[in-house]
Order: sequence, then C-alpha cells, then structure tokens
Amino acid sequence: MEEVVKAILADVKENGDRALARYTEKFDHVALSEFRLSAADIENGFQQTAPEVIEALELAKANIVSFHEKQKQTGFVDAEKSGVIRGQLVLPMETVGIYVPGGTARYPSSVLMNALPAQIAGVKQIVMVTPSGPEGIPSAILAAAKIAGVDEIYQIGGAQAIAALAYGTESIPKVDKIVGPGNIFVATAKKILFGQVAIDMIAGPSEVVVLADESANPRFIAADLLSQAEHDTLARAILITTSQDLAQRVQTEVATQLALLPREEIARQAIEKHSAIFVVADIETQFALMNEIAPEHLEIQLNDPLSHLSRVKHAGSVFLGAYASEPLGDYLAGPNHVLPTSGTARFFSPLGVEDFIKRTAFISYTKEALALEKDAVMVLAREEGLEAHARAIQVRFEEELS
Amino acid sequence: MEEVVKAILADVKENGDRALARYTEKFDHVALSEFRLSAADIENGFQQTAPEVIEALELAKANIVSFHEKQKQTGFVDAEKSGVIRGQLVLPMETVGIYVPGGTARYPSSVLMNALPAQIAGVKQIVMVTPSGPEGIPSAILAAAKIAGVDEIYQIGGAQAIAALAYGTESIPKVDKIVGPGNIFVATAKKILFGQVAIDMIAGPSEVVVLADESANPRFIAADLLSQAEHDTLARAILITTSQDLAQRVQTEVATQLALLPREEIARQAIEKHSAIFVVADIETQFALMNEIAPEHLEIQLNDPLSHLSRVKHAGSVFLGAYASEPLGDYLAGPNHVLPTSGTARFFSPLGVEDFIKRTAFISYTKEALALEKDAVMVLAREEGLEAHARAIQVRFEEELS
Repeated sequence: MEEVVKAILADVKENGDRALARYTEKFDHVALSEFRLSAADIENGFQQTAPEVIEALELAKANIVSFHEKQKQTGFVDAEKSGVIRGQLVLPMETVGIYVPGGTARYPSSVLMNALPAQIAGVKQIVMVTPSGPEGIPSAILAAAKIAGVDEIYQIGGAQAIAALAYGTESIPKVDKIVGPGNIFVATAKKILFGQVAIDMIAGPSEVVVLADESANPRFIAADLLSQAEHDTLARAILITTSQDLAQRVQTEVATQLALLPREEIARQAIEKHSAIFVVADIETQFALMNEIAPEHLEIQLNDPLSHLSRVKHAGSVFLGAYASEPLGDYLAGPNHVLPTSGTARFFSPLGVEDFIKRTAFISYTKEALALEKDAVMVLAREEGLEAHARAIQVRFEEELS
Repeated sequence: MEEVVKAILADVKENGDRALARYTEKFDHVALSEFRLSAADIENGFQQTAPEVIEALELAKANIVSFHEKQKQTGFVDAEKSGVIRGQLVLPMETVGIYVPGGTARYPSSVLMNALPAQIAGVKQIVMVTPSGPEGIPSAILAAAKIAGVDEIYQIGGAQAIAALAYGTESIPKVDKIVGPGNIFVATAKKILFGQVAIDMIAGPSEVVVLADESANPRFIAADLLSQAEHDTLARAILITTSQDLAQRVQTEVATQLALLPREEIARQAIEKHSAIFVVADIETQFALMNEIAPEHLEIQLNDPLSHLSRVKHAGSVFLGAYASEPLGDYLAGPNHVLPTSGTARFFSPLGVEDFIKRTAFISYTKEALALEKDAVMVLAREEGLEAHARAIQVRFEEELS
C-alpha cells in the first residue's frame, strides 16, 4: 500500500497533469480534458439542490461562522523593556486544499466545516478536490462549496489528488495545507507528504461517550448512541452511567430503535462489537473513565451539566444536557465537526481557524538594550561551541578597524 | 532505515524496558540498571556548571517566560442566542516528552526553548530524554533542565526513546506529545508515530535571509550570515540587497571573518554550496524573493525596519534593525528558537504555548432553542443518508409512548 502510494506521488511530482489524467482515468473511470469545474457547473449544482437543503446549509453556515469568528487570534507587541520591542504576528496561510471524498456517500456539511474556518482565517485561495464518478459530483456538494465561498473545484481524487495539491501541477495549484477526510490511499498520501505540506489530523473511526444519571432520558440516549453507530461498523458508542436502571432501559431502547434504522446492519455491528454500557459507582468514576477514553464526542446528560464542564480533561466536543444531541453539533450548532478521534483528543483539537494561520515572531533591540544582554548571549553561544554566534554579537561592539 | 526504525518501535512496544535496555547498551554503549537520573545527579550537574552559564540561562529563562506568557490563550463562551450556550475550553496537555540529542554537541538553550512553553501552557508532567555517552550527560544540559523545571530525566535516546515515550514502558511514562530535535532515527520514529502521539515540526537545515540596503553594516551582516553557516554544512545564509556596493563588501567581510572561525570548515561548505547574495532592483523585489523562500530567520537591516514588517508573509522569526542579530534570538531575546525551516514557515509556526494545549468545544441548547433549528438538522442528516442522526433529533419532540 505505502509502496503503491509512493509510486503515485513520485509520478505526479514528475509528470504533473499527464500522470493526474492517467490515474483519474484508471481509478475514477473518467477521461477529463479539464480538471477544473466551470462556474456554470457549480451554479448548476446549486440550482439542482433542494431549497430546504440550501436553507439548512445557509443556517449551518451562519452558526459556523459566528462560532469560528470567536477563534480569531491577533498578534501582540510587547514594549515593556527599554529599547526592546518583541511581538508576534498572526498571518493566514495563502493557499489551502480541501479533500472531499467521492463514492456513494456525500457530506456537504463537511465542505462547510473545512472551508469556513479557512475563510475566516483569511486564506486567499481555497481549492477543493473531489473525484468525479460516472454521475459527476453530487449537487449538494457543489451547493455547499458555493455557499462556503469555494470557487475552485477540481475533479480529482485519491493519492494522485493529494500529490497534485502538495507539489502543484500545470493546472492544480500547490497548497500550503491539505485538510479533509479520505480513504486509506488519501490518508497514506497525506501522512507521507506531511512536512512537505501541512495536513490535518489522522482520522480514525468515530466515537461518542454519554455520561448520564438516573434523571436522563433513555430514548434520547439510545438515539444518540445509534446516530454514532450508524457511521461505521467500527464506530464506538459508550454509555457510562451511575444508574443500573438507566443502563437497562437504554439497552432495551437501543434494541428497539436499532431494528428500525435503514443502516441497521452497520449500526448493529458497531453496537455489538465496539460499544458498551458501563455502570459505575459515582460521578468521579464516570469522568475518570471518560477522560481515559478521551472521546471525540462527549454528551453530559447529568443534572446541571454545565457545572461539570471543569471535570473534562480530554474530549473533542462536549454536548451539555438533554437537548444538545450530538447530531446537532454534526450539522448545525456551529462548533466544528472535524474532531480528534480514537483518544487523540489528548493532544489534538477540533479543526478551527487556528489550523489555517501561522505565527511569526519579531524582535527589535537598540544598541543600548543589546549591550545589557550581550554577555549572556556570548556565554551561551560559547558554551554550545558556536563561536560565530558569539562573534555576531561581539562585532557590534568593536571599533571599526578601517 | 524505515524498516530498522519500525522494528525498534515494535520491539519497545512489545518488550518495554527490556528492549529499551538492550538498545541503550547496543547504541549508547552504557548498561543502565535505572534509566531515570536522580535528583542528586541533576543537582550535581547544576553545581558543576559555570556560574556565568547559570546566570545567562536564568536571564534567558526570564525573557522566554515573559514573551511566551503573552501567547497564553483563554477559552470563550458565547451566549448571544436565546437558550444556546456555545464555547471553547483551552486545556493543557497532561504529559509531554522532550528529546535532547546526545553526541558531542550540547544545546542547553534548546532545553529552555522546549520546556518553558510547555510549563507556561500548564503541562503537568514534562519528561526529558537524552542519551548518555560514556561521559554521562553534559552538566549544562542538567542545569538547563533544573532551571526550566524539568525534574524527570531519562538516559535514553534514539528511536527507542521515542518509542518509549509514545507507548510508555514500565519505567517511562507514555506522553501526549514529543518535541525536540534528533538525528535521522529520531526524526523517522517521530514521523511514523505521528497520530499515535503528537509531534513537533519536521526540522530541516537552518537558514537565514538578510534584507539590507546601502545603509547596512557589512561587518554585522557577514557575522550574522556566518553564525548561520556554522550550524551545518547544509545551512543556508542568504543576503538580498538593493546595493551592489554592500553586496561586494559583505562578500569580502565573509571571507575575512570565515578564515578566523573555529568551525571554518563547516561554515565554508555552507557558504560555498548553499548560500548566495542577490542584488535586486527594489524593496518590493527583496520582499517578494524573501517570501518565496519563506525563511526560518529573517533579518531586516533596512532603514526604518519596523515599517516594513507588514510586508512579511512567510517567515519564522524576524529580526529588525542592525542590533537584533540572529544569535540574540537564538539564545536570549525570548521568542522561541525552534522555528519552521526549509520553506515550511508557509504553514508551520515557531514552537510556542499553543503547541502544548488543545481546544475543546461545548454546546448547550434548551428544548426551545433546538426546536428552532431541528428541521435544518434533520434535512441535512437525511440529505447525507444518516437517518439515525435525524431520529436523534426527532425523538426529542415525540410524545412519550409509555
């Protein structure tokens, strides 16, 4: 697998569009004379999308934008010491690539979740790539792209699309960062190219942990667990409760609701093989176990849920109370749905504006300010055996010889 | 190489301390009964370090702390919409590992630059690993660790140390993130384990770009270029100037100063093979070329340097004016010296407090607030073919049947 991907990357790096066209024909079964979709194609997709979907995407956009606007950072300047200015700039990345998977599933919500934070960060050029099947690109994806302000869409996918974004080709711009989920070829290509280009997190199967007490509604909880389970046969849906009675009732409800789902088979495997209900002694144990799991999604269906927020050490996104159902966060509430999975909430964060900026430090010293600290610089430079470093300071205090 | 590293990682994952001891004996030629240094060992190293080095490290620490304190972020709460609370927590990582390379070079300044931002972020456990040679660990490294507040130091190195930190062993704690430079084995191990654990940037050779006009001092510039060049035969030192005369004088100065350096051979290779002086027409071209390079270090030795800061699009750390010599930033000014190299300043940032925190989003909705947005959630869920997502919302508005 890694060898296959490496060969594709090298080929696209070497042969650009020609290689890209070859792989697109081979894997996506389409022969393209032009990778880029026209504005008319995008507009057409928008027009073919049901009005209630457009309306829902617009509402989602408004909530995502108002939430992510609050993530914007500014730089700082520190001039507290005489003769010294120190500071930090926050600058947007220039060009970002968003990968949108093809296949039977279509996730217009992911287009919003990936593109809008980049826009808010101030990224100038947002490029979307997505493989085109025989039926083209789903209209809802094109509508979401238009709503999110993405105007460059290329019909390419797989490892070859990742290579094109990382290296650039005659028709595909080289980008600074690649975000968005993909199949194993896409994930492998991203991991190999990390460093050459920035990438987002490595995504694993999705999971939810629900913390509940006897006051919680078992029907709501069962429905939320199943919404997680329907994603993927490897998805994990976990309830941790202090109530034996609630545990029983949730189990019954899961069985009842599961039987009625269109994606019953997927959800059943996730529930039977990767999910669990834990009954524990107290609230401390609930949170200790949850923090051990470091879940992607956490629902706190306890009395006075907000009061427990400070117990959360590791979680991607937290849903407080009976009505903050996890799918509300997936689509509409505004926080990002691209979240750290499989325990990586210990060190990764939800996708956000932060992912599309970089920081630059700056300093300015007067000669007098440098004079006060020059000896310390030279001592450390010489301690580390870097004499030229010491001399770069020293030369500034020597008389001109000429 | 990758195969060798993968075998080491698998062995340490499987066999823990036993494998670690075996590799430490094989590669570092020391047989250890205990990996961890005692408090007495660390104190001893501190005592053996020259007082002026201790004093310089303390001054560096004060400047690093006062700068990085300004990077601290807080979360936010947004309660602008009736019945809706949305917000973001900023939480420290719990455990972080710092790799400090062994070998002949010793860089106590790197210990401060890696450990202090983690401390300021609120990381509870900062673990340092560094291979012990026959002469043990340099006392200045131990002194820097003590000054930086690192109290767990393990005498391990190489890919086996990275594996130990990523997986944990009987005696080495599993960490959330690994930072710090290392040789090719260390870098390869970090890249392979990325996702299992967070890592810092992939570091390449060091570089500086100096932008100067006819008012600049050629001796200062030559000294700064050479301080970069002495790092590594692959280091790049680049001057971009509008003055043919300055270019000439810098070239002469470089030759003069180079001949006097202890690390002349290294610096000469860097200067001859990887460095350059560009004479360009105007200030716009200077900045355009510099932004194309996206240098790790940027010196702006132009008239009124601060006025040009807004022209910087891609650079790790910027040094403004004749006295902000780059080595000042390496050791003492306060901004971090762990910087994006080889053009990665387009998308990576200097190491900072941000690298040791993660964000967690949260939402709370009342039933009434959810009622206003429920249709949009269900429309999008069904558009994406995720019926259980829609039902998780719907169930909250159905009459109880029992």
